[in-house]
Amino acid sequence: MTDFYEPTERTIPTRSRERAAYDRALVHSILDETYVCHLGFVRDGAPVVLPTLYARAGDRLYVHGSTGSRPLRTAGTGTEAPGLPVCLTVTHVDGLVLARSAFHHSINYRSVVVHGTAHQVTDPEERRTALDALVDHVVPGRSSDSRPANAKELAATAVLRLDLEEVSAKVRTGGPNDDPEDAALPHWTGVVPVRKGYGTPIPADDLDPSVALPAYLSAV
Amino acid sequence: MTDFYEPTERTIPTRSRERAAYDRALVHSILDETYVCHLGFVRDGAPVVLPTLYARAGDRLYVHGSTGSRPLRTAGTGTEAPGLPVCLTVTHVDGLVLARSAFHHSINYRSVVVHGTAHQVTDPEERRTALDALVDHVVPGRSSDSRPANAKELAATAVLRLDLEEVSAKVRTGGPNDDPEDAALPHWTGVVPVRKGYGTPIPADDLDPSVALPAYLSAV
Repeated sequence: MTDFYEPTERTIPTRSRERAAYDRALVHSILDETYVCHLGFVRDGAPVVLPTLYARAGDRLYVHGSTGSRPLRTAGTGTEAPGLPVCLTVTHVDGLVLARSAFHHSINYRSVVVHGTAHQVTDPEERRTALDALVDHVVPGRSSDSRPANAKELAATAVLRLDLEEVSAKVRTGGPNDDPEDAALPHWTGVVPVRKGYGTPIPADDLDPSVALPAYLSAV
Repeated sequence: MTDFYEPTERTIPTRSRERAAYDRALVHSILDETYVCHLGFVRDGAPVVLPTLYARAGDRLYVHGSTGSRPLRTAGTGTEAPGLPVCLTVTHVDGLVLARSAFHHSINYRSVVVHGTAHQVTDPEERRTALDALVDHVVPGRSSDSRPANAKELAATAVLRLDLEEVSAKVRTGGPNDDPEDAALPHWTGVVPVRKGYGTPIPADDLDPSVALPAYLSAV
């Protein structure tokens, strides 16, 4: 396995090519830092974009949903199923870039765009692994501290796999790029960092008070 | 104008219908709380999802980009242009919902999905208004404290308009919904709130130290 994804016609952007990257470790780090992606597919010729959870295991991404949901039904099951052409996109907003000119305002961000065909996972072992990964991708360590899915729940849940093959990252960092002739303008210029974090966990109303907050949550 | 968007076949979800909402004020409030959407369109029959800034003015959404970018070229210009079928999605993640069972883990979120056809804005006045709105949607008050776009910058910038007509919100709030038979399991259960905010603004290296931080930034 090489350190880079091979660029393709659709992973080479038409704009801001200098921001595009194909470095496998960078792509993985962007994907691992959050857990909600925006999944695009085509329905009746029109685009549909839905937010959904995902997890990564090596160079495979997993999403899941009800077996009754439209995209999962469309993907089909079995080795003969056509799968579902998708575009899966993950974006972190890191900062607001305020330039002196309105035109040069920007956002510091890191995004990953994955093109490919998602297929339903039917192998029971891979399904279990994927479902654990989906829980652990949100809260590392959680899957081993919750009741595993039973047969009925497993039957109601579809898992889609999307291989990381046609994929690119795009990253903007740093300060504003004002035109030199704007340098003397009296406007404040710089970057406002965007912060993300977690508040104090709120126990469920019916939680037995003797159940302590687990270590994996006191760390978030 | 009614208080609700009319549901359509594609804005009525197949799953979790009880979470869907068509309330205009709710949709607007979700759209106004952030500034990055995921814009989906179809290229060569395949879905593409890209993160981009947007702004709302009444029941119109605006996105912008280089006139050379593929989606903007596809939309075309002029009253005869076909426009670009899009799906524009905005998602807030509000909390991690940890149930006792892996199956009932969930996310508290608020999302808006807009279906429609985006058209290039050619009216100079509407273009200016949209570009100001795009800056002010990120940092309210900023457009009047930066140099407006000049003719060359305006010529390089395309603005797309998407009317809010076929639109729905989806909201999950509250705690876990564990099965009653899981109530005695020893796992911590509850909600971990997700927090978003801003760090201390970082002045650009070349900022004249006499330029004070504007009031609209000390409030963020």
